[in-house]
Amino acid sequence: MPELRKDPIIGRWVIISIERGKRPSDFSTRTPRKKGGFCPFCHGNEYTTPAEIMAFRPEGSPPNSSNWSLRVVPNKFPALHVEGMLERVGEGVYDMMSGIGAHEVVIESPVHEETLATMPLKSVENVLWTFHLRMSDLKKDKRLKYVLIFKNEGEVAGATLEHTHSQLIALPIVPSLVKEEMEGARGYYNYKERCIYCDIVRQELETGARVVWENKNFIALSPYAPRVPFETWILPKQHESHFDYAYEGKYAGLAEILQQSLRRIDKTLDNPPYNFVIHTSPFTNEVNDYYHWHIEIMPKLTKLAGFEWGSGFHINPTPPEEAAKFLRDARI
Amino acid sequence: MPELRKDPIIGRWVIISIERGKRPSDFSTRTPRKKGGFCPFCHGNEYTTPAEIMAFRPEGSPPNSSNWSLRVVPNKFPALHVEGMLERVGEGVYDMMSGIGAHEVVIESPVHEETLATMPLKSVENVLWTFHLRMSDLKKDKRLKYVLIFKNEGEVAGATLEHTHSQLIALPIVPSLVKEEMEGARGYYNYKERCIYCDIVRQELETGARVVWENKNFIALSPYAPRVPFETWILPKQHESHFDYAYEGKYAGLAEILQQSLRRIDKTLDNPPYNFVIHTSPFTNEVNDYYHWHIEIMPKLTKLAGFEWGSGFHINPTPPEEAAKFLRDARI
Repeated sequence: MPELRKDPIIGRWVIISIERGKRPSDFSTRTPRKKGGFCPFCHGNEYTTPAEIMAFRPEGSPPNSSNWSLRVVPNKFPALHVEGMLERVGEGVYDMMSGIGAHEVVIESPVHEETLATMPLKSVENVLWTFHLRMSDLKKDKRLKYVLIFKNEGEVAGATLEHTHSQLIALPIVPSLVKEEMEGARGYYNYKERCIYCDIVRQELETGARVVWENKNFIALSPYAPRVPFETWILPKQHESHFDYAYEGKYAGLAEILQQSLRRIDKTLDNPPYNFVIHTSPFTNEVNDYYHWHIEIMPKLTKLAGFEWGSGFHINPTPPEEAAKFLRDARI
Repeated sequence: MPELRKDPIIGRWVIISIERGKRPSDFSTRTPRKKGGFCPFCHGNEYTTPAEIMAFRPEGSPPNSSNWSLRVVPNKFPALHVEGMLERVGEGVYDMMSGIGAHEVVIESPVHEETLATMPLKSVENVLWTFHLRMSDLKKDKRLKYVLIFKNEGEVAGATLEHTHSQLIALPIVPSLVKEEMEGARGYYNYKERCIYCDIVRQELETGARVVWENKNFIALSPYAPRVPFETWILPKQHESHFDYAYEGKYAGLAEILQQSLRRIDKTLDNPPYNFVIHTSPFTNEVNDYYHWHIEIMPKLTKLAGFEWGSGFHINPTPPEEAAKFLRDARI
């Protein structure tokens, strides 16, 4: 019998369809990176990107020179523009807003072949620090309400360039999915006076069946109602409402569990395409007791079809307990 | 300057990103159907599907014999099961329900190469009548709350068999997206005492820029805030809350505009993969004044990436006014 499982935060149902059960080897993998060919993100090609916003480079070396280990540049084809007035206009029943925001690219390494799974741990930590720094900086712009940080790895997952990079889009509105999560978490808190994510972490650590990996401050798990096979979440074990709240050792520990998770996903599924997204409280929400920032990693193994588009529900052929076991047991 | 446009029903924002503007020829197309090879949906292979639920066949010809023009069969790998008790179970913070429901396949033609765009108009009408009949039948099962009818055309859109077919999944819960639409439409009605979809139809007929085609009872249009390039909606011009409310000529007129829309999409985009979904009021909602059933057609031309997964928003490189013009001007 298939199961209908409900995501406890936003109430999204997922059909765990065991008849369609798939083993890791049933899924397609991402195309290996081609060597050779021109890449604007590679070492030496800095002049082909817009001028950098920040970079990790030796003190005194000039911006946009080739001596760097990480660069942040504006997206050359930005979805939103930084300059301009934020205007709202009505058109009969419709509403429109000028597309003010920021769209930046974090080039995570000068080396074309590296990925977050294979680069030195210190480089992963630098990527996370960069997210922290850009988020803190963009918060100062009062027109903006949220920064969405995400990664598209592999063409199927939406990457147009294969060189390892992540992106951030700063928005003048809080995205609907974030709103739903905030409302769901607030509803639970009002009722129980506890954070729902804290309760999830506690229950998962107790039962263990969906735990993928853990270290001192973080847990990686297969969520109870995953939208896609091998969906993996990384959460801080202690309550924290904002990703950019920094303390000693935070991003080192996060880098470790993020790399562990990605290595296990790469090994189990033979380098699948994937997306990850950082979910955090909006700018306008102060440090709070009800929302718990986390990272959601979504391997892109199944296709979104009419059912998903029409219902907002998902059909997932791999139970999360099975996925977690595969990831836990992966020999990396 | 890009535009942020808001869907007036559920408040979903879409970024119309003109810098990334794409012409119809920039998108990929669906793989042409292969002739030869075994197909379980083809004429003569009736014994390979589960026994038929209904069929259009000459009076007196036995079920599952090869003399048919349309068949409905249970999905061989159903996402949900018809048999069993509907049970709800809690597991700590989580909720689960047994996967009760129905999952049926409408084989729209015995001819492998035909599509809804190319088959005789009468056959398209029969497909729509079949949707009506199956919906009316499944409504009698008191465990069920909604029937989602959809089509996946092309592998990229999620079709696992290329032979022309659509599907229905009957659910013991109302899907979240349908709930959101009902709530959005009810909110507008409470405030304005008018159906929001009726207002949209009125405004679109007045301005004309987003109209693709119309006939006596129906309009096809590019919605103001489309999630994907060339998204097309078909709505009845007069208010109707339920798809399965039948009157003389309804499904003939709908067949005509559906085929017109699909032909224009196929011509303009060189046979793209697409999904369509029928949006209608849930079983438990009586005939009502606030919700307006319609069909949403979504060509599958762009990839859902981290931004969409994390925000619930969409980035669309093709303004709907441009898409509508291309579709309107298509020489079919």
